[in-house]
Amino acid sequence: MPTLGEIAKLIDAELIGDSSYKIDSLASIDCAQAQQLSYVVSRKYSEQLLNTLAGAVIINRSLKDSCKVNALVVTDVYLAFSKISHLFKPKISHNSGIHPSTDISQVHVADNCTIGQNVTIGSNTIIAASVVIEDGTTIGRNCTIGPNTSILQGTSIGNNVVIAPGAVIGSEGFGNARDVNKHWHTIAHLGNVVIADDVNIGANTTIDRGTLEDTHIHRGVRLDNLIQIAHNVTVGEDTAIAASTAVAGSAIIGKRCMIGGMVGIIGHISICDDVIVNAKSIVDKSIITPGMYTGIMPLMPHKKWQIVSIWLTKLDKITKHLNIKLNHLKGR
Amino acid sequence: MPTLGEIAKLIDAELIGDSSYKIDSLASIDCAQAQQLSYVVSRKYSEQLLNTLAGAVIINRSLKDSCKVNALVVTDVYLAFSKISHLFKPKISHNSGIHPSTDISQVHVADNCTIGQNVTIGSNTIIAASVVIEDGTTIGRNCTIGPNTSILQGTSIGNNVVIAPGAVIGSEGFGNARDVNKHWHTIAHLGNVVIADDVNIGANTTIDRGTLEDTHIHRGVRLDNLIQIAHNVTVGEDTAIAASTAVAGSAIIGKRCMIGGMVGIIGHISICDDVIVNAKSIVDKSIITPGMYTGIMPLMPHKKWQIVSIWLTKLDKITKHLNIKLNHLKGR
Amino acid sequence: MPTLGEIAKLIDAELIGDSSYKIDSLASIDCAQAQQLSYVVSRKYSEQLLNTLAGAVIINRSLKDSCKVNALVVTDVYLAFSKISHLFKPKISHNSGIHPSTDISQVHVADNCTIGQNVTIGSNTIIAASVVIEDGTTIGRNCTIGPNTSILQGTSIGNNVVIAPGAVIGSEGFGNARDVNKHWHTIAHLGNVVIADDVNIGANTTIDRGTLEDTHIHRGVRLDNLIQIAHNVTVGEDTAIAASTAVAGSAIIGKRCMIGGMVGIIGHISICDDVIVNAKSIVDKSIITPGMYTGIMPLMPHKKWQIVSIWLTKLDKITKHLNIKLNHLKGR
Repeated sequence: MPTLGEIAKLIDAELIGDSSYKIDSLASIDCAQAQQLSYVVSRKYSEQLLNTLAGAVIINRSLKDSCKVNALVVTDVYLAFSKISHLFKPKISHNSGIHPSTDISQVHVADNCTIGQNVTIGSNTIIAASVVIEDGTTIGRNCTIGPNTSILQGTSIGNNVVIAPGAVIGSEGFGNARDVNKHWHTIAHLGNVVIADDVNIGANTTIDRGTLEDTHIHRGVRLDNLIQIAHNVTVGEDTAIAASTAVAGSAIIGKRCMIGGMVGIIGHISICDDVIVNAKSIVDKSIITPGMYTGIMPLMPHKKWQIVSIWLTKLDKITKHLNIKLNHLKGR
Repeated sequence: MPTLGEIAKLIDAELIGDSSYKIDSLASIDCAQAQQLSYVVSRKYSEQLLNTLAGAVIINRSLKDSCKVNALVVTDVYLAFSKISHLFKPKISHNSGIHPSTDISQVHVADNCTIGQNVTIGSNTIIAASVVIEDGTTIGRNCTIGPNTSILQGTSIGNNVVIAPGAVIGSEGFGNARDVNKHWHTIAHLGNVVIADDVNIGANTTIDRGTLEDTHIHRGVRLDNLIQIAHNVTVGEDTAIAASTAVAGSAIIGKRCMIGGMVGIIGHISICDDVIVNAKSIVDKSIITPGMYTGIMPLMPHKKWQIVSIWLTKLDKITKHLNIKLNHLKGR
Repeated sequence: MPTLGEIAKLIDAELIGDSSYKIDSLASIDCAQAQQLSYVVSRKYSEQLLNTLAGAVIINRSLKDSCKVNALVVTDVYLAFSKISHLFKPKISHNSGIHPSTDISQVHVADNCTIGQNVTIGSNTIIAASVVIEDGTTIGRNCTIGPNTSILQGTSIGNNVVIAPGAVIGSEGFGNARDVNKHWHTIAHLGNVVIADDVNIGANTTIDRGTLEDTHIHRGVRLDNLIQIAHNVTVGEDTAIAASTAVAGSAIIGKRCMIGGMVGIIGHISICDDVIVNAKSIVDKSIITPGMYTGIMPLMPHKKWQIVSIWLTKLDKITKHLNIKLNHLKGR
């Protein structure tokens, strides 16, 4: 466990507080406890900073007065956080074969599988050929893990889960901090992926682990092939998502939704329960009312599209030419 | 082979007919033969129901009069079908290494491959490292199967076929029946994937098996990387599809088509021969005339897009304000 | 090394020049040297043809006068090139285990990996389980190559590179020549993938090798999951691309760009440095000015979209009805 003094040195921070204070892990500002270090990137979170139970927080100068716990003051909070994140990333064993700490007596394990340390697998589960399961993973009963899948460190999978071939569960999230030279610094993702009971995950689908907390796939979810689920996403119970859809970081999808194929869902938004999104739409803002939504450009013969698309990009000029104002359209 | 009596019990159906009648497999209403069970979900198919050669059909009460063969009457036909589908799903052996029933004397098989029972592989075919081939698969001559691919149960592959690394052929289709509690019940997909001669399939592309009949990739087709081909799709001869495109269930694509990258093709539609679809378009209805089609939103500087997109979502109000009716535009 | 006489025979070409001239490889018209064969598909490149240093060039009849070096005259240049490309494709060894010519004494190699001939791997690099590395690949120091990845023949990877599970590096590009019967003939891709230092590549992402020259991922690039990078693409330093984006062949992306998720970038275009493209947009032409760009259809309640989309496809007729001409909008 590093001390705040050691951490301050690593990120070149001014330490306000106890340099011998020990930190055992990282957590977000709302969840952090006494032995945990958190961070706050802007004044928007000053209320949470005032009320945090964290042992210490990384902040910039402007937030000094809002911080009542140990503070690590830096110029670029997110960049400092990216550096520290690697301190707390558990090492993976990269063992050979099936580690002796893992009991597979109730499990059918096919050929060419690699299973790490302290993995738990429930009875009647089938692990197909060429599967790689990393350390600390838990897999429930009656699951089928398809060939050539990768189940990464610390993943938790419930009962009756089917994972199709080539899926990757627990890959690093796409989080990077940019320095003054515009170089990217990777954030080590310390959360896991938690998959509840009765979930199906399609072929070559990828689910990233959370940054500090976990990525959640709730009970009964159906995910088709080639879907991307980013870090910290939640997919609610009994929601089905069709192929080639991508869900960006920290999006929350409600229960019983039906998301079409090739839909894009942007990050940090919420979709309420019982929403249907038609194929190929983009969900570019939160949806708060159940119902069916669409946002696609209709297909046209190419020559027609060429003409329509010119007028389309001139809609602002057309309305100006016609002297139409937005308030003319109210009540229409 | 289960009897109709046993099946009726499993799905809690009223059986009209012979309870000792034996069923050996499932088939769609048009294809079913005497020892097969089929299903009909709505009155739309009452004509086919009247003419079916099926040994028995799952129907709801309203179709009783249109059924002249053994009938299993239930409240939710599709849900009942999802339950029965698992009865007829062949078990996979999940053997180790290369099963002795498979002759690989004419084949180059690299390291760490797993090959199941009763697999046939033609001469001069190369199976690269870490490939998993399940039971009952047939692969022709002069093929190259790339590393880390998964060729699942019962897949049929012609001669001179190239499958790039990470591809998954024969994954389960995305078919689920919803019960009254809005829980999903997976349908076991009993069809296979049939790939004809001279086909190329790209890296990490996924092709799902059919529900009852097969998914077909015809002679000479070129599929790029990261493509999704759903259950029961047909891709016609000499058609080329660029990367990251997704084709939904039961779509039929004609011959000599050129489908651009990241195109979405919705389910249950047809595209005729000699069609070009430009990149990123959605094909949201059948195409019956050869030619080039497009449906994309042009790229704009973000600030311009913000203004244009506001007017775009108000096109209905603008035309109302201007007192334009659809019939004003006829002949224009 | 084949002679021009042998090559002429293979592609049924009229040879103008020295039939005993030996060719050791293929190259594009601008780069080709004395022992190399090139090709020119149209008069557009007649200037380059006049100035080429190539030992020989495949041309059609109309370019005879512009060719001052050995010429192979054919009817369909691209089709002839596709046939010859296979002559120069190196064979892959498809060995078992780890080839003795590869030194892994400084490397951690997990279980079930297959590593080909003449592979170089730097110190402190980790090769996770079930990785396949083909002949002639170079991997730098301190890299992590995730489980179930495929690193294909001749790939070059710098230091401090992280490749996530299931990625495929060096797959064949999607290049095919069409004959008079509209059958596709695969072009063997002879270029490699060159990945510089400090690059991260996401899970199940695919990067194709170049046709004759290489595909380049420059220093500090971040690629998320399920991205497609086609043949001959260049991604500039410190550019980040979010998940499920596809970049078509020969596109050039500048430095420090941020490309959102599910963006489509068409082939043979350039994006300048410091460009931001918002999620789900299509880049359908070159971008020459830094800034933020968007091209998406906003999400609407489905019923509203149905009405808006009808008017949208009639924008040409609406403007005609209103007697608006494009020049009316100038200066607006």
